[in-house]
Amino acid sequence: MQISPLEASPGTNLYEAVAERIEWLIENETLRPGDRIPSVRKMHRQLSVSISTVMQAYRILEDRGLIEARPQSGYYVRRSLRRSLEEPTVARPAKSARRVRVSSLSVSLMDKLDQPGFVKLGAAIPDPELMPAKALNRVMGQVLRNHPHGSHAYDTPAGCERFRIQIARRMLDAGVSVSPDEIVTTCGATEALYLALQAVTEPGDIVAVETPTYYGILEKLELLQLKSLEIPTDPQEGLDLTTLEQVAAQSKIKALVTVCNFSNPLGSCMPDERKRALVKIMSSRSLPIIEDDINGELFYDSVRPKAIKAYDNTGLVIYCSSFSKTLSAGCRAGWCIPGDFTESVLQQKLAITHSSPMPTQLAIASYLRQGGFDRHLRRIRRCYREQVLRVAEAVGQHFPEGTRVSNPQGGHVLWIEMPESVNSLQLQEEAAEHRVSVAPGPLFSPVGQYLNCVRLNGGVRWDMRVEEAIALVGRLARNQLD
Amino acid sequence: MQISPLEASPGTNLYEAVAERIEWLIENETLRPGDRIPSVRKMHRQLSVSISTVMQAYRILEDRGLIEARPQSGYYVRRSLRRSLEEPTVARPAKSARRVRVSSLSVSLMDKLDQPGFVKLGAAIPDPELMPAKALNRVMGQVLRNHPHGSHAYDTPAGCERFRIQIARRMLDAGVSVSPDEIVTTCGATEALYLALQAVTEPGDIVAVETPTYYGILEKLELLQLKSLEIPTDPQEGLDLTTLEQVAAQSKIKALVTVCNFSNPLGSCMPDERKRALVKIMSSRSLPIIEDDINGELFYDSVRPKAIKAYDNTGLVIYCSSFSKTLSAGCRAGWCIPGDFTESVLQQKLAITHSSPMPTQLAIASYLRQGGFDRHLRRIRRCYREQVLRVAEAVGQHFPEGTRVSNPQGGHVLWIEMPESVNSLQLQEEAAEHRVSVAPGPLFSPVGQYLNCVRLNGGVRWDMRVEEAIALVGRLARNQLD
Repeated sequence: MQISPLEASPGTNLYEAVAERIEWLIENETLRPGDRIPSVRKMHRQLSVSISTVMQAYRILEDRGLIEARPQSGYYVRRSLRRSLEEPTVARPAKSARRVRVSSLSVSLMDKLDQPGFVKLGAAIPDPELMPAKALNRVMGQVLRNHPHGSHAYDTPAGCERFRIQIARRMLDAGVSVSPDEIVTTCGATEALYLALQAVTEPGDIVAVETPTYYGILEKLELLQLKSLEIPTDPQEGLDLTTLEQVAAQSKIKALVTVCNFSNPLGSCMPDERKRALVKIMSSRSLPIIEDDINGELFYDSVRPKAIKAYDNTGLVIYCSSFSKTLSAGCRAGWCIPGDFTESVLQQKLAITHSSPMPTQLAIASYLRQGGFDRHLRRIRRCYREQVLRVAEAVGQHFPEGTRVSNPQGGHVLWIEMPESVNSLQLQEEAAEHRVSVAPGPLFSPVGQYLNCVRLNGGVRWDMRVEEAIALVGRLARNQLD
Repeated sequence: MQISPLEASPGTNLYEAVAERIEWLIENETLRPGDRIPSVRKMHRQLSVSISTVMQAYRILEDRGLIEARPQSGYYVRRSLRRSLEEPTVARPAKSARRVRVSSLSVSLMDKLDQPGFVKLGAAIPDPELMPAKALNRVMGQVLRNHPHGSHAYDTPAGCERFRIQIARRMLDAGVSVSPDEIVTTCGATEALYLALQAVTEPGDIVAVETPTYYGILEKLELLQLKSLEIPTDPQEGLDLTTLEQVAAQSKIKALVTVCNFSNPLGSCMPDERKRALVKIMSSRSLPIIEDDINGELFYDSVRPKAIKAYDNTGLVIYCSSFSKTLSAGCRAGWCIPGDFTESVLQQKLAITHSSPMPTQLAIASYLRQGGFDRHLRRIRRCYREQVLRVAEAVGQHFPEGTRVSNPQGGHVLWIEMPESVNSLQLQEEAAEHRVSVAPGPLFSPVGQYLNCVRLNGGVRWDMRVEEAIALVGRLARNQLD
């Protein structure tokens, strides 16, 4: 590609002029999504500007989300969804607390979602092939040789210190500064959330949740005999703080559970400034926030969104996360930062699982210490973003008219809102007959709502089978309307 | 050693005569505990009887518990405690249900029990050096190479099928015939017990327990807001079934939790025929039994005691166990056979930890399939038995007059009842100053009783340090009486 010489307008920096030029090429589709843009060196020669000017221009474009760097390969135009579809509507949930009934549905569905040979669009499972299994296995082998007995002794309830040190380091990226002693390791984020909920509630209490919300949270509410109060949730910005403030002021709720970075299933991400406001609303009434940040590292933009815990100055935020979506689900390597509730969480941990598995904690600690995790994260973020966009495009092509789809900026799931009369439970059964799984909307509601919605997993590697599976689900949905 | 020729009395089998001769040598202390007895071949030459006759005689003596085979080494006289001390008295607990308060005590003690450099007589921890770490690590390395991605995918809540198949095979030894589908794998027996208790109770319910009882069970009762009703427990035969029948008839209890094979801390083992009666008492009133069989494989005699589950014909027995005392505590590899409560246990498992760690399940499954576990078990049974006897002997030498000690026939803990005025909480603190841990009696009571008792761990490898530690604890106890 030959680029005409640069004519910088007066008062414009040279690097801005370079950036504008590239932007113009993208807008005019000379450079299309996925195209490689000229190398820094080539651009430097063609435009007769310095290498550092070009690099600065590319950094600006990267920050604007227009291009992306791929290691050892160069800069590419980011794929952006041609949004033929609108975003889902904001649900208006009941204003009263509801008893939760979801676990029997979820158990029966888990079986169906996990059958071998299925195209797994149902469960929010990252493709195991995307995980750095070989590197992790090599490290685990080293750990077993270096700690032949240490891997098989009882751990303390707080968990392996080497692992907690690495977690504490990573937490800095989320804006959270904690010592390893403030961390409790858990069997996945699942156990962390369970411990957190049990630490701050009594049976019969009411807990505020997003809507739609992750069924794993609803299952825990049901098991602990808690009621849910759904807070309207914007597909982009997350929880409606005005409503939350009202219910908090009315002393209705005992706690809030939120997946505020790339929520499941909506994909919403609360802007950091609103997180500060959220903490203020809750802590002024001494109400704890349980934060599930399992998708926090899976942002598509250049900056990791902060954790709510970053704004916690009272100890009332319990942070929960795990490496299940980024490294290994099978290792069950999660953690919890319980703040004021640490003693209670430790007592429960001892009573529920005693301690977390040692070989996997030691292995992940070594893997993180050796470096390479951030490079891996950059790779899977690109993959997830790409796959999610492709799924959304396919939904746009194949699903019934009037279908809406979420536009997440992180994570790997999509929330699809179909016309009112589509029944997603029926759709899920019909799709299963064709060996395709989808997660029906009622899973994400305490009372079986969202019957016309499904969640699709963008964690699976895009290929012809996936494309055909989405086309099939779309056809089945359209058939329901005929 | 020269043995005089055999003179078989009329009407006696030749092999019985050989057995009697050896028995006589043991009784007269010509052969002392730990001595090697003449080899089969030597005996065959000296007594001029056939090799098969000698072998039959040795088998009889082994069955009687007088001698033991050590692989690649021959037959030895079994070490038997010179019982200078009587067994603990049977406690008479309150006849009413009590609220449990033990977890704050246990968490603060766990820290003290586990400090590096301590002689660990407190926690019931098997010496990690006794575990087949190298073999297990080698197998885990193979598994990671053979299933590079499988180890890192989400497992189903029921757990890894290969692992469940191996567990089902081993359950046959306990008299339990189940299919792998009836098994749910857990993060240690701890999670299995927690799931079981949560499946069969509601907050406020009363649960029958042994007394003294394992604090891990009491912690769970406390967390689930259950009340405990202690049933008198014989140091040899376990639960008093007459009392249990009474409280069951009075509809006082909702369930029973029992460690009926080598209970913790008493070491009692309910004879198999009484297990049948126990099941009858409970199932005739539709009351579930939760069985913790974690020590079932650690019998000192020649036959594994049966599980209660072996007598279950109604599905009301929930069996719980793990490989923490026999293979690896760090792997958190436990399981549960929930009978009628399987669906409920699976729902909870999904909500609490989602699933168990994969690399460890796959590794233990391979280790069990390859064989060698039974040989390893024979070795650690001998070790535990030997160590427990040595600890008991040392207690006899060093502890205050009037001290009683349990005489377990399996497991690796001892229950020590000291004179009334000894305070074990004080003793534990004083011992900790000398870097020795003991588990004070109140840990094993829902209401802080057993203040004059301690549990000592015989799982640690016997050496001078251990002997000195016991002498120290004995001296500290005697000082309290001065």
